[in-house]
Amino acid sequence: MGMKFKVELTKKAMAQIIKAVAANIERISPEQTLKLIDMLVEAKKTGKKILVLGAGRSGLVGRAFAMRLMHLNFNVHVVGETVTPAVGRDDILFAISGSGTTTLVVTAARIAKRVGAKVVAITSHPRSPLGKCADHIMVVYGRTKLAERRDYFSRQILGVHEPLAPLGTVFEIAAAIFLDALIVELMHRLGISEEEMKSRHATIEPP
Amino acid sequence: MGMKFKVELTKKAMAQIIKAVAANIERISPEQTLKLIDMLVEAKKTGKKILVLGAGRSGLVGRAFAMRLMHLNFNVHVVGETVTPAVGRDDILFAISGSGTTTLVVTAARIAKRVGAKVVAITSHPRSPLGKCADHIMVVYGRTKLAERRDYFSRQILGVHEPLAPLGTVFEIAAAIFLDALIVELMHRLGISEEEMKSRHATIEPP
Amino acid sequence: MGMKFKVELTKKAMAQIIKAVAANIERISPEQTLKLIDMLVEAKKTGKKILVLGAGRSGLVGRAFAMRLMHLNFNVHVVGETVTPAVGRDDILFAISGSGTTTLVVTAARIAKRVGAKVVAITSHPRSPLGKCADHIMVVYGRTKLAERRDYFSRQILGVHEPLAPLGTVFEIAAAIFLDALIVELMHRLGISEEEMKSRHATIEPP
Amino acid sequence: MGMKFKVELTKKAMAQIIKAVAANIERISPEQTLKLIDMLVEAKKTGKKILVLGAGRSGLVGRAFAMRLMHLNFNVHVVGETVTPAVGRDDILFAISGSGTTTLVVTAARIAKRVGAKVVAITSHPRSPLGKCADHIMVVYGRTKLAERRDYFSRQILGVHEPLAPLGTVFEIAAAIFLDALIVELMHRLGISEEEMKSRHATIEPP
Repeated sequence: MGMKFKVELTKKAMAQIIKAVAANIERISPEQTLKLIDMLVEAKKTGKKILVLGAGRSGLVGRAFAMRLMHLNFNVHVVGETVTPAVGRDDILFAISGSGTTTLVVTAARIAKRVGAKVVAITSHPRSPLGKCADHIMVVYGRTKLAERRDYFSRQILGVHEPLAPLGTVFEIAAAIFLDALIVELMHRLGISEEEMKSRHATIEPP
Repeated sequence: MGMKFKVELTKKAMAQIIKAVAANIERISPEQTLKLIDMLVEAKKTGKKILVLGAGRSGLVGRAFAMRLMHLNFNVHVVGETVTPAVGRDDILFAISGSGTTTLVVTAARIAKRVGAKVVAITSHPRSPLGKCADHIMVVYGRTKLAERRDYFSRQILGVHEPLAPLGTVFEIAAAIFLDALIVELMHRLGISEEEMKSRHATIEPP
Repeated sequence: MGMKFKVELTKKAMAQIIKAVAANIERISPEQTLKLIDMLVEAKKTGKKILVLGAGRSGLVGRAFAMRLMHLNFNVHVVGETVTPAVGRDDILFAISGSGTTTLVVTAARIAKRVGAKVVAITSHPRSPLGKCADHIMVVYGRTKLAERRDYFSRQILGVHEPLAPLGTVFEIAAAIFLDALIVELMHRLGISEEEMKSRHATIEPP
Repeated sequence: MGMKFKVELTKKAMAQIIKAVAANIERISPEQTLKLIDMLVEAKKTGKKILVLGAGRSGLVGRAFAMRLMHLNFNVHVVGETVTPAVGRDDILFAISGSGTTTLVVTAARIAKRVGAKVVAITSHPRSPLGKCADHIMVVYGRTKLAERRDYFSRQILGVHEPLAPLGTVFEIAAAIFLDALIVELMHRLGISEEEMKSRHATIEPP
């Protein structure tokens, strides 16, 4: 019991993350989702490259998505990795940034647009610099202002109430779950089974 | 409406992931959690290194956690990255593998144990090879056998019902949320504010 | 002059690295080289995957080579990066390890062999564990015992003469130059111009 | 003999790379080198961070250098890796770009300058955008215009003479050897033996 109390905060934080993420996922636009799926299916069919881009933890969310697209046999690459080829006309640059202001992401997105690539922005802020240069904006909400006032734990650090989901946590988890759900939609659209995905999965593992 | 129907599967998959993850998080052991937090706080206080290890998407979950530990000013490294030093006596090897059988992860964990490091395993399978060589096992459940029978979408691919959360998805998202919640617990235990974390956050971004 | 003296050691070290590397490159076997080129050309023509593997600085040498193979439009991947697919039958695992004993590299090479991939070892030690499981050994020498006795700077650290090319430096630079020369041979064999390579080169750079 | 002829081009390319690199290394300025060593020694003594930055193969050269600085116990990080903290006042941003025009490198260097970091540019072009925003320029030459006219192999691809050291090869190898020689100078300046470096070396290898 004493023990349980000591990890009470971990439990509250898990509940708060789940709650905030579930609420944000409710707000995801079916229209934006449908257009995104159509773009991805089209890229698969034409063999056009998808380049995934993001900084920090958004970049990790992007990589997790890229790995699944590889399992689905997409022509997918991660910007900044070794064998990623040049972005070209009609390629898709899939850029992830909650704020939509990450300098290097915005810079790269603008360059991609200039060579004729299509920019998809996964962001909470459609009017951000990233949103403004995107061909398709997919809004995934993160921590809201409301959350900043309400959803705080009562204990304080240095006299300030601290959040139960610091920094970009809510956006990152919401984007991860949304993109994992897209993978399921793509499996069905493309007729690819989990078994087939598995065969491309383990890099260097025994048979 | 027709449009909504076309992305119905994405919505079902999101709901299923959230549901499965929420259920698994309920089952997380407070005792195991408390011991893990104590180990991490101890590592912070003594300045001992934490080396994070994982393959594939589990490796990405590990990196997301490592990034937050860096924001909390831990001496943390990711195995396989450029400036990661040798593992040493009393360091913590933080290994993530749902199955607990990933060959390279198990091999690395055994080597770490031989030099006197403490191995923490984040896994669904405490009796796996990884679990067996761990000093502390933190069980995070993934997709259950029950889920494999029930939680399938009715449409079929090649005559087989396919899951709404393929491969390691449930384990990966559950582990990500659990580790993000640990960060909140660590913030409070160590008296570190979100503002302070933010100051270590953006790598190369304008002030 | 006083200034020049202060960086005299840098100049001596550069001269020593160049000298040792030039000598080692002389000893590279034309027979081994020819077989390696034939394997790579064959992989290009059949579209079989090449997976590049190495730890530490050998891994970086491998990545530099993988990047150029990508410029030549090979189906090439780096083990451990995000979108690297599973190794399969008849794929080439291109493993780099001066000592041929790096545990994780040897473990991965053995797994690759078990699924029917061909292992190419770039190593100084053909009788090492890596060499023993290789289908083709390409010997590139590193620092020799002779060098360890002779080519040391006269100043001492803690009473010991220290080398002008510490640790794996000579092997790494020799391997890098050898692999860059292979690229030239491949350009001519495959009829690919520098201009064509350049077009695949810059990832996200303006046109 | 027939066999030797078939790899003649590989031998010519190795000789040409060595020759061009040796010539460029001769031209390295002792004054620039001395200032760079002083900056690095100062960073080591004050514990200030060094952040290494580069795109493509220049980035790999930077990582190889960063790994050695870690062996020398520097506070060193690679921009873009997981646990790299924010750049701050008086940190050193160590940027590598042969052309000095790589957009993302120049963008990052300008941001680093704005927060008060010192920018070191390793480049062939001191008047490039990167050179212009650098606090210290360390010139390492790459392929010269002269080389572009003379040092070409006689066989042609698509009617054009192709180089024996394509794209940035000469710059990259020259920079790698120069930075490896700096490591030797730093070992002696800081009194760190090869043995001590070795103890930080292997990440997850048996003792």
